[in-house]
Order: sequence, then C-alpha cells, then structure tokens
Amino acid sequence: MKDSKNKECAVQFEPIGLKVKVPSGTTLLEAAHRAGIYLSSICGGDGYCGKCKIIIDEGQSYSRPSPLLTSEEARENVVLACQTKVLSDLTVTVPKSHSLETSQVLMDTDARIFSRLTGKTREALFEYDPLVHKLCVKMSPPTVLDHTADHERLYAAIRRQVDAPIMQTGFRVLQKLSKVLRENNYIAAVTIGQRGKTTEVIEVEPGRRCKINYAIAVDVGTTTVVAHLIDITTAKTIDTEATYNSQMNFGDDYIRRIIYAEQTDSFDQLQERLVHDVNDLIMTMAARQRIDLQDIIAVICAGNTAMIHFLLHLDPTRIRREPYVASAAFVPPIRAAEAGIQINKRGLLYCLPAVAAYIGSDIVAGVLTTRIYTKEELSIFVDIGTNGEIVLGNKDWLICASSSAGPAFEGSGIKCGMRAGTGAIEGLNIINGDKIQFKTIGGSHPIGICGSGLLDTLSELFVNGIIDRTGRFKAAGDPRLIEGDDGLQFQLVEPQNGQQEIAITQADINNLIRSKAGVFAAIRRLMNSTQTKLEDIDTIYIAGGFGNFLNVQRAVTIGMLPDVSPAKLQFVGNTSIAGAKTSLCSRKALETAERIAESMTYLDLMSDPGYMEEFIKAKFLPHTDLSLFPSAKLFKISKI
Amino acid sequence: MKDSKNKECAVQFEPIGLKVKVPSGTTLLEAAHRAGIYLSSICGGDGYCGKCKIIIDEGQSYSRPSPLLTSEEARENVVLACQTKVLSDLTVTVPKSHSLETSQVLMDTDARIFSRLTGKTREALFEYDPLVHKLCVKMSPPTVLDHTADHERLYAAIRRQVDAPIMQTGFRVLQKLSKVLRENNYIAAVTIGQRGKTTEVIEVEPGRRCKINYAIAVDVGTTTVVAHLIDITTAKTIDTEATYNSQMNFGDDYIRRIIYAEQTDSFDQLQERLVHDVNDLIMTMAARQRIDLQDIIAVICAGNTAMIHFLLHLDPTRIRREPYVASAAFVPPIRAAEAGIQINKRGLLYCLPAVAAYIGSDIVAGVLTTRIYTKEELSIFVDIGTNGEIVLGNKDWLICASSSAGPAFEGSGIKCGMRAGTGAIEGLNIINGDKIQFKTIGGSHPIGICGSGLLDTLSELFVNGIIDRTGRFKAAGDPRLIEGDDGLQFQLVEPQNGQQEIAITQADINNLIRSKAGVFAAIRRLMNSTQTKLEDIDTIYIAGGFGNFLNVQRAVTIGMLPDVSPAKLQFVGNTSIAGAKTSLCSRKALETAERIAESMTYLDLMSDPGYMEEFIKAKFLPHTDLSLFPSAKLFKISKI
Repeated sequence: MKDSKNKECAVQFEPIGLKVKVPSGTTLLEAAHRAGIYLSSICGGDGYCGKCKIIIDEGQSYSRPSPLLTSEEARENVVLACQTKVLSDLTVTVPKSHSLETSQVLMDTDARIFSRLTGKTREALFEYDPLVHKLCVKMSPPTVLDHTADHERLYAAIRRQVDAPIMQTGFRVLQKLSKVLRENNYIAAVTIGQRGKTTEVIEVEPGRRCKINYAIAVDVGTTTVVAHLIDITTAKTIDTEATYNSQMNFGDDYIRRIIYAEQTDSFDQLQERLVHDVNDLIMTMAARQRIDLQDIIAVICAGNTAMIHFLLHLDPTRIRREPYVASAAFVPPIRAAEAGIQINKRGLLYCLPAVAAYIGSDIVAGVLTTRIYTKEELSIFVDIGTNGEIVLGNKDWLICASSSAGPAFEGSGIKCGMRAGTGAIEGLNIINGDKIQFKTIGGSHPIGICGSGLLDTLSELFVNGIIDRTGRFKAAGDPRLIEGDDGLQFQLVEPQNGQQEIAITQADINNLIRSKAGVFAAIRRLMNSTQTKLEDIDTIYIAGGFGNFLNVQRAVTIGMLPDVSPAKLQFVGNTSIAGAKTSLCSRKALETAERIAESMTYLDLMSDPGYMEEFIKAKFLPHTDLSLFPSAKLFKISKI
Repeated sequence: MKDSKNKECAVQFEPIGLKVKVPSGTTLLEAAHRAGIYLSSICGGDGYCGKCKIIIDEGQSYSRPSPLLTSEEARENVVLACQTKVLSDLTVTVPKSHSLETSQVLMDTDARIFSRLTGKTREALFEYDPLVHKLCVKMSPPTVLDHTADHERLYAAIRRQVDAPIMQTGFRVLQKLSKVLRENNYIAAVTIGQRGKTTEVIEVEPGRRCKINYAIAVDVGTTTVVAHLIDITTAKTIDTEATYNSQMNFGDDYIRRIIYAEQTDSFDQLQERLVHDVNDLIMTMAARQRIDLQDIIAVICAGNTAMIHFLLHLDPTRIRREPYVASAAFVPPIRAAEAGIQINKRGLLYCLPAVAAYIGSDIVAGVLTTRIYTKEELSIFVDIGTNGEIVLGNKDWLICASSSAGPAFEGSGIKCGMRAGTGAIEGLNIINGDKIQFKTIGGSHPIGICGSGLLDTLSELFVNGIIDRTGRFKAAGDPRLIEGDDGLQFQLVEPQNGQQEIAITQADINNLIRSKAGVFAAIRRLMNSTQTKLEDIDTIYIAGGFGNFLNVQRAVTIGMLPDVSPAKLQFVGNTSIAGAKTSLCSRKALETAERIAESMTYLDLMSDPGYMEEFIKAKFLPHTDLSLFPSAKLFKISKI
C-alpha cells in the first residue's frame, strides 16, 4: 500500500449526499466534522459512549473492535465513527437517529413563553432604556456666536436626550463626524451603546436612518443555540430562530469539549463552530425579515460560563479543574466583529454576568426574569439541562449551586433520547397500567423521546408499578418488557413500517434517576444550608429546553422537585433568552443582573460531602425518606 | 516629443545627492516632496511667495515667468520649484537657505526650560498619578474557597493599588489573561490607561516587566515637532528630539495647508507626513536609549487645533471657514496604532483639550504650565508663533484670543528669516548707532535670522533711529542702507567668503510690525473687554520657539507687549510640551487642563471691529498712543 499515509480519500455521506476529502487514516468522526455533519457523540471521540454509530456501505476502513456494538450491528456494517479509520474512498450512511431537525414548533413556543414573561417583567420593573440605541439627534448648526466644535456639539445634543454623563467616541466615527453632520444639516442618526458606565458613540449616520435599529438576543446553550431578532425602537421580538450547537461533535457536554479542545489544541475550531452557528441564526432571520446586517447594532448573550468562554475564545480550561475558575464572570462589552459575529462592524456584543464557573449568565438571566430577587417569600429556580443549576432565595439573599446531573433529560445518554424537535415524544401516559398514549412534537410519527417525554415515562413507569423504587423493572410478565440488545427494556412504541421501536432501557432509567437525584440533592443541600423549610417556599420555577409541554407535577412524583402543591410549580421556559432581551432593553435591567450576579452565594457541591449523602438518598423513587413526599401516598409505593 | 507625457524623468537633488523618478510634467516642488526634501513654501505652490527657489544645473525644464525672480537669479538658472515642470532628467541644486538642520542646542534648551517648569509645576500642584502606568500586581491564586474568576481577581488587585472605580479590559487582553496569570504565579505587570473616567487594562505581561514603562510627549507645532521620551516610573524626561514639520512643503502656515489638502484631496498625504515625523522622533529616541517600541505605552500631544486635526486625520476644513469650527476640541484617547503612531500596539494616544479652532491644546498647556489659572493676580500668557495666541485672566476667569499675526517671528516671509537652528542670528545689538554685534546659535557663521534675532533687529533699528515710528528707513546716509533686489534694505552682515549678505528689507520690517501689532492689538482687546488696567497685570508670560535667547524687554520696546516693568516679563519657552508632560504624569493635571479648556472664554477677533481699530493703532513703533509706553521716553521718539 504505497503512499497510503498521504492518500486522499473521498468519503460520501448518505442519505445527505455530502462528500468530503480526507487523508487516509482519518477517523470517520473527524471526516463527518469536516463535512459539517452532526454525529451524536457524548465522549468526544474516546469510543466509550457508543453514540456515533454509522453504516459502512462501500470501501475500505479499519475499525477497532467495540463491546458497544451488537453482533447484529456488526453484520450490518455498523461501526463507531470515532473508532473507524478511512483507508479508501468510502460511502457511508448516517442513521436517522443522528438527524438534526430544527423544530420551528419549539422555537415558536419559546418565543411565546418569552414574550409573555418579558412583556410582564420589563413593563413591571424596568423602564425602556436600551443598552444600544439609535437616537435622532438634531443640532443647531454652528454660528459666529456658537462655534462649539462638532464633537462637543454632538455630545451636548445627545445629553439633552439621554442620561450620559461619561461619553466616548470611536476614532473612525470622529474622523467622519464633521462631514456627516454637515451633509445632513446637523440632523443625524446616532447609535450609542453602553460600555459599563460609559456611553459610546458607535456610529453617526444621516438622520433618515433613525428608526432602523435592531439587535439580537442569544441563548448560547450547550445543546441548542436560540436567537431572537429584536426591533430596539419598539422593544419587540420580530423573529426567532434556533439551531443545534455545532460543537456537539466534540462532546455532548461542555467538560468533554474543553478536554477535546485541550487535547487537540482546537479552541479556534470550537469557537469558529459556535460563532458560525450564531452568524447563521442572525443571517437567517435578517434575510427573512429583509434587514441589512449593518442595521443590527448589538448582540446580547446569555449562556453557561463555558459556552460564553468558547464563544469569545476565552480560556475555559480552568473551568474543569479544581478550584474551578472562569477567565471572566463579568465579560466587558466588546465589538461584536472582534469575536467574528457579523453585524454592524462597530456593533457591540454584550454578555450577561455569570456567578461562577458552573453558574453562568443563563442562571442570572433566570433570576432576573422570574424576579425571585424582588420577593419577600422564598423561591427556588431550577434550570434542568446538562448541569441542573438551582437558585434559592428572595430579596434579601440568594444562594446557588450546580449539580452534575448529566444531560439525561436533554436526551443524551438515553437510547431513544433526542432533543425537543419534530417527532419527539413530548408527553406520555400509561392508561390503566397498560395502554400507552403519547404526543409527539409536530404530531408526526415518533422517532425518539425528548426531556418532557422522558420525565413522563419515568413517572408513569413508577406510578404504574412497572419499575420499583430503585428504578429496576419488576419481573412481572408485562409483554412490553423484553430483552433487547441493551438488556431488559420497556417498549413504548412497536416497530412498524420500517420505523424502529421506541423503548426505554434499564440503563436509561438509571441515568434519569441519577439526573433527578442530582437536582433534588442540590435543592436539599441549599435548603439545609440555609435552614429553609419546605413550607417557606412560595414558588418553584422550572426552566429548561423541555419543549412545549412539561407536566411539572410529575417532576415531584419522581422526586426531582420537593413535594409542594401544584400551584407552587411554574414552568417558565427559556428564561436565559428572556433575561438577555430584558437587559438589552433596559440599562437598569443589566445593572440589576450585575447586582444579582455579585450578590449570589455559590455553594460548591463538588467539594461538599453533605451533597453526596443527599444524592444517595435521592437515588430512589421518589426518595428513601417518604416523609419528604407526602403526596406519594396517592400511589402504591413499594418498599425498597 | 513622443510619449513625453508619460516619460519618467530622474531628478537629482544636489548637494544632498537624492534622486527621485517622476513623470514628465511634474513640478520640481512635487518632485522634492516625493524625494522627502524640504523646500520653503509659504503659498503652498501657488507661485506667489517666492520661497521655493532652486537652481537648475542640467537638463530640460519649463518655468512660468515670475516677477519674484531678479534678473541676476534668472541668469543663474534660479527658478521657483512650484512653477517649474520637469521635462527630462534633471540635476538641480537646493540653496542652503532651505536647509533643515535640527538644532540640538535648541532642543537641549527646551528640555532645560521644560524640566525647570514641570519640575516645579508637578511637585507644587499635581500628585504623581500618570494617565498610563505599568503596575506590578500580585494576586493570591484561586482556591476552593476563593474561586473568583481571573478577570475580577485582577480588577480587585488593581483597585487595591489605584483609584479605578470604572474599569474595562480590551478583548485580546481578556483572551490571554488566564494563561499569563497562571504562567507567572499570579504576579503580573499590568498596563493601565485612563480613557476619560474609565481605567482600561491595556496589557498584561509577566511580572518581571513592571518597571519598563515609557511614554512620549509631543508638541505638534506648525513648524517644529518636538518630542520628549519620558520614563513613567520616575516621571523624568530621558531624551528629547525635534524635527521640522514635513508638512511645510504644503504651506508655511496651516491655513495654506488646509487649502492645499482640500484642493488636491491630499489629507491622507498630510497626515502621513506628520505621523511619519512623530514616528521618526520616537524611533530616534528609542534607538538611542535602547528602548523597545513595545515598552512605550502612550503618546500625549499638544498643538494647535489644525495640527491635531491633521495628525489624527480629523476634518480640519471648517477651521478656516466662518464660523471657524473644529471637528473636535476634546479629542478622546485612542489607540496610538489607529493613527499610525508606532508604539506598543495597544498603547494610547492622548491629546490635550483645545478651546476653539484658533486656540489649541498648546495654549491650554501653556495656561496649565504657567499656572495663571491658580493666581489671585491677573496674568497674560502670549504664545508667539504663526498666530500669536493670548490668554488673560486669573483663578476666577480666563479670556483668550488669537491674532492672525502671521509667521514673521518664525522667520517666514522674511528675506533672511530662518527657524531657530545652527547659524541663526538669535541676538543682535547696534552699538553706538553704528557697530553691529550679533550672536548665532551654535556660534557658527550667520546664515539667517531667527525670531529672537528679528525682534532685536526691529528694536535696535528703531532705538537707533534707523527706522521711524512707521517702520520706514530714514533717508539719512547710513552706508548700510542700500538698494537691493527687494528695494531698500539694511545690511546686517556683509557678504564674505562666498556667503550671502544678511539684510533686512523694508518689506521684512513691515511684516514684523504687522505681527507685533497683531499681538498687541489682541492683548489690548482682551484687556479692554475685561476692563483690565495695565497695573493689574502681575506677570506676562511669553512662550514660543524663540530659541535660547529672548530679550523680552525689547518686545515692549517695539510695542508688541504692554509697557510693564522688566520684572513682570517672563520667557517660558515651550510650554506646550511642558503641559503635555505634566498631564501625562497626573490624571489631575489632565482634568485640570480640561477644566481650563472648558472655562476659557474665546473672543473671536476676526469678527471684532474693535480689534481692527487697535491693530491700526499698533502698527506704529511702539504705538500711536505714546502714553501707553511711558518707558519709550528713554529713546528718542520721532513724530509720526
């Protein structure tokens, strides 16, 4: 095999039809990356998550043997992409399970929840006073008696309209200022933006462009990136769009991605991916709304600390190492172009402030949106994602923690798990302990189960006695309980018309219980450390990417949330983007977010022995201590 | 003459030996520009100042006839460079009168005067608190109990050392922050700089570089650009350098240069020239002191408003048009690299604030340096240059004006005039009405007369009765009074050893009287408009590029300054650069300069009929009204 090392091989991905050339010896996972194709991968290419299955149709390849493949899969030429090297031109098929359909349904719902929340929040609490704004500024032209320089004339005119004691002007703006003012008879559209306490003159244009004035709010999620296009003049969201985070090829959770980036020195690549995603969202919405990118003058982001670090190419490596430190929790506003974001080339990029390495600006945004920091009564805010962040407090104090819950409720590490998108089972009931009823997003044939569906499944299996309090399938002769490739599993949807069955395995259930136990243990630790009793809790707010539908009561049934009355449970959707938008539209809101971030006490559970104790007790359904779950009396609870 | 239009011609400039290729048809003035050779030119190439004389040695050229050339000059192939087109390869000689020798003597003196003034000023009034500074910052590394992010950890540490309530960090610095801190055990050399009220973290380096910390102060003059290299850590000037402003080829005064730039759309070229001059000064000093340009972290400039506009490529065109408005009087700090200044690529460029189009930051620097804004008594500050700016006031009020005096006292428009450099007559006495005694800079053979020499000449001609009170030569048979090419002239130095004679013409005297009249009329207008009496004036400070020596009393004799006792007259040298350095070394000083600039009342003499009246009265020696000059009794004063 002469020259085989340097040989270029063409890899054709079906059914997408994309082709990419790679050097012989490249893994199929890497080839997929290069082709821009998403393959599920939790472990980031280490060969132990078994998610990146792909089918070799034609050509030579070498795969390392893996216990994660069944004998049937081996016969059908299924391989792990990360463990398979390309040796010749190849044709491969990407199984449907990897497919990434952006769900318009989910996004519309986000937008609805969002506008309901922010509508209230902003009007109730924060005056309209956006971080960036295009003012229509009219000045008297200079005369012999008033020969103030153009620059100071502009400042004086701006200060008649807005409170801007400290101002600065970009050099390029200053250079063209006199020309623009004179050509437009001293009427100008002046874009101003806050950089901390300083008001910057970002752009000066002819006066007729005063009303053309847009910004983007982004929730930079580990799994999904959601963006809203906002008309700053009206403070209204005029379009929404979402996409999967393209970094998923490098690991489903961000710790994996940090490790991957460190090992392969590919921080550049990870940033480019994420920036590309954000730019894609912006361009899609701008094209749809026929808006010039130059008229988008700001981007405001919220997200977990690692994602914000990746987006801005800050060093995230210390986030994963004790003592778990971020490069920056308060990221100063920068020019969006500096990070590669394609809006007005002088437009600003804001990030909401974070609290710590594991309490990001998305959580601060959640506190801002739910307003728990204003209330006399105690509230709990729970964001269920890869980590499961919890905030407990009221107007006097706020304490927070992050449980390493794992991404089970995002569908990761679950055999038939998927993100909330078309075809995902989002709700499920077992009628009379027997008949299964479900609802999919978009109403189509089910292709997997998303977070809210998984919560329902776990709850219904438990309530109907199909699993016991440890989560183990009972040996009773339920015909749906069958031995599959991955051990004992419960069939939710039978295979039909060539579609695969949808089932939940013992491993899946264990995963989900670990996740819920992590969240509950964290809540308990925060409550115990502050001597908070359950009856002191006024409201529990649940945020997260659960899609359209979340039966919050079932989160109590499985013991994820404390046993409060249903009236005290409120699903609040994507509060990350809601908080970003609120902050964009009011300087006071951003200042409030900063005060929230500064004032929150962070409890590090990773170095907390009490947390592990609580975690072990919470690894039962609903808990070892049933006195904590009086409403569990409604069900037949078996002994442990 | 086939292809003559596009023919390239080589023009050789002697005795310098520089050669440049230009298309056929190019003027010799333009060819000199391209070769980087300085030719005097007041009119900017319009052919009416007669300054750009040059000798054609060999080759073909075409010159438009000019009345400014004598028949003898025509015989010797002297032409006006701006009126002569290159038609073939040429060899030309640049007369010595154009030569631009940087006078080390002048610069050393500037530095001495400067250090004397700022030494006092800073110690007396402003605490050491520089605009830019390299701090040695030691932080405790993060622990499990203290996991503050690196960025906020740095801010906290900086705030323990300096007062910096509002801070910002450049994006590139933020990106590398974690790495630099960790590699140096949380000891860092942190460069901070003020941008208005905001303290910016400009650079973060390993801790060992704390003491390496330089800045440049520049006086951006219309004629001369002077720079000082300052060690910020000790606040000491460690080197000085000066050069002629290369824009002089485009006109001796800045109004001419603005017209030239507008007519030929060459603002780029004019900026490049000036930036190149500043860079040359910086590089010369850095090389001499073996300092890396990266260790120069700021440049602070003072100068007239037009020069600052040219330097920063701000639009200066409205400075010369009613109502005479600057683009910016308060120029915000920018990154020096944005203007093309070659220091640390993140280093800052500051400009002291100006008052108006014709009262630049050099005058504000003068007020700051002389401290007239702190005094109970009234003072007058006079800066004699191209314009002759005057400030009158005390701690309660300051009023200022600019007289269009013209650059006569800078040697421009004077037959044997030259800038203060080697060979310039800087002092002159006429002994017993007959014998002429003079002193040249550097002690060499005289080649011209600089400002202080011109002042002496005018005064001595007057006091010795050689000219009358209107400035006209008396018809008495003085053998030195001879008819020259330019009419009647008084010979100061006879021609010898092939050197030209040095003489002063009737036109020169008229020019000088116009200049002095402009200054005096402006002083009178300011005094009259504020009802200030002469006895109220405590001190008159005279600033300007007069070189080593200025007999300030003679400025009274000719009626340029009011008749006060010699003890009240003080020559203060280059206060522009002194004020720049003071501001660099103290935030309070810059804030004070800003307050001074804001508080100064500007009186526009161009639209003031009273000024013209005063000007006409001042066009006599010393004045029409001798009661204003009681000390004139000491001389024989002829009737008008």
